[in-house]
Amino acid sequence: MRRFPEPISNLVAAFSRLPGVGPKTALRYVFYLLRQPKSDLSVMAKAIEQLALKIQICSTCFTYTERPVCDICSNPSRNDDVLCVVEESRDISTIEITDQFKGRYHVLGGTINPIDGFMPDVLHIKELVVRIESSPNIREIILALSPTVQGETTILYLTKQLKPFNRRISRLARGLPMGATLEYADEITLGAALSSRKEL
Amino acid sequence: MRRFPEPISNLVAAFSRLPGVGPKTALRYVFYLLRQPKSDLSVMAKAIEQLALKIQICSTCFTYTERPVCDICSNPSRNDDVLCVVEESRDISTIEITDQFKGRYHVLGGTINPIDGFMPDVLHIKELVVRIESSPNIREIILALSPTVQGETTILYLTKQLKPFNRRISRLARGLPMGATLEYADEITLGAALSSRKEL
Repeated sequence: MRRFPEPISNLVAAFSRLPGVGPKTALRYVFYLLRQPKSDLSVMAKAIEQLALKIQICSTCFTYTERPVCDICSNPSRNDDVLCVVEESRDISTIEITDQFKGRYHVLGGTINPIDGFMPDVLHIKELVVRIESSPNIREIILALSPTVQGETTILYLTKQLKPFNRRISRLARGLPMGATLEYADEITLGAALSSRKEL
Repeated sequence: MRRFPEPISNLVAAFSRLPGVGPKTALRYVFYLLRQPKSDLSVMAKAIEQLALKIQICSTCFTYTERPVCDICSNPSRNDDVLCVVEESRDISTIEITDQFKGRYHVLGGTINPIDGFMPDVLHIKELVVRIESSPNIREIILALSPTVQGETTILYLTKQLKPFNRRISRLARGLPMGATLEYADEITLGAALSSRKEL
C-alpha cells in the first residue's frame, strides 16, 4: 500500500528539496496546507509560477529583478563612484537596510570554492573586470564578502585582479558583532577589533 | 524602494505562513528556488494545486484520501474487529510503518484543547460514537493518542463516552523509548515502565 495519497507524497517530495527541509518537515508543511482554505494553496502555487515567469537577472549587476535592468542600476540618484561587490542578491537587501550605502552593486553569484566547483570563471568576475575597465568614474570598490574561508579566498583573488585598475579597494571591517561578549570572541576577530580600535 | 521584486516578496510571504518558517527561512527557500531550473518550480506549483484539487476526506475514517473512501477503509482484507483512534492522518502512516496493526482507523482531527478552541464537538467524536454504535463487530478500540496533557484529556473523555458500548478500550503502552537512558527519564515514564515491566 502507498503510505500517502499521491498528491500528498508528490508535494512532500517537492518540499523535501528545499534547503534544510527533510521528509518530516516537508510532511508537516503539507499537513499544514491541507488544513488551509484552498484559495491559500492556489496563492502559493501562483506565487511559485510567477517566480519562474517574471524574475530575470539584471544585465548590469546580475541581481534578481523583474525588468532587464534592476531598480538600483536604473536609479539615476545613486552614486556612480562606489561599487559594492556582493556574493548574492540577498546581500544587497541586507546592505540596503543599513541605509549606509548609496552606490551601485555587483553580484558575483557565489564565492570561489573549488571543492563545490565554484571556480572564478563561473562567477561574474569577468563581467566585474569589464565593468570597472569601462567605468572610469568608479573610484572605490568595496568587496562586501563574508569573512569565511571562501570569502577571504575570493577577496584575495579579486584584489589581485582589480589592482591594475588603480581604484581604491576596500573590505568590510572585522570586529566584535553587536551584543557579543569578549569571553566568546575568537582570536582573529578580537585581534582585528583591537588593531582597528576607534578613539572616543 | 521595495526591498525585493514583487514575485520574490510574494513567495516569501506565502512560505512564511508555513509552520516554523520565518521570513529569513522563507527567503532562503525562495533564493534556492531561483537557482533551480524553471521546470522544477512548475513541478512544485502543480503539486500544490493538485493537493487543493484532489485531496478529500474519507467519509468513514476522516483521513486524507484521493477517493470518497480511503485505501484502508475500502480494503476488504483489514480486520473489522479492532478500531484504532488517532489524532491526525499522519499518525496512520506512522502506525502502518510498524506493521503491527491490521485493523481500521478513525481520525479525530485533533485532541481536546479548550485554550485553542478544540472542544469535543469540533473533533470527529460524534462520528466515532455513531460508528461504534452501528458496528457490533468492533471488539476493541485502541486510543492511540500522544501521552501529552491534551492527549490524556482526550483519552479520559473518550473512555467515558465509549464505556456504555461495552467494548475493550485500550491505550498505547507507556515506557522508556528505544535508546533512552534511565538518568534522563521522567518519573511518570519510569513509573509506567516499572509497573508494566515484562518478564524475560
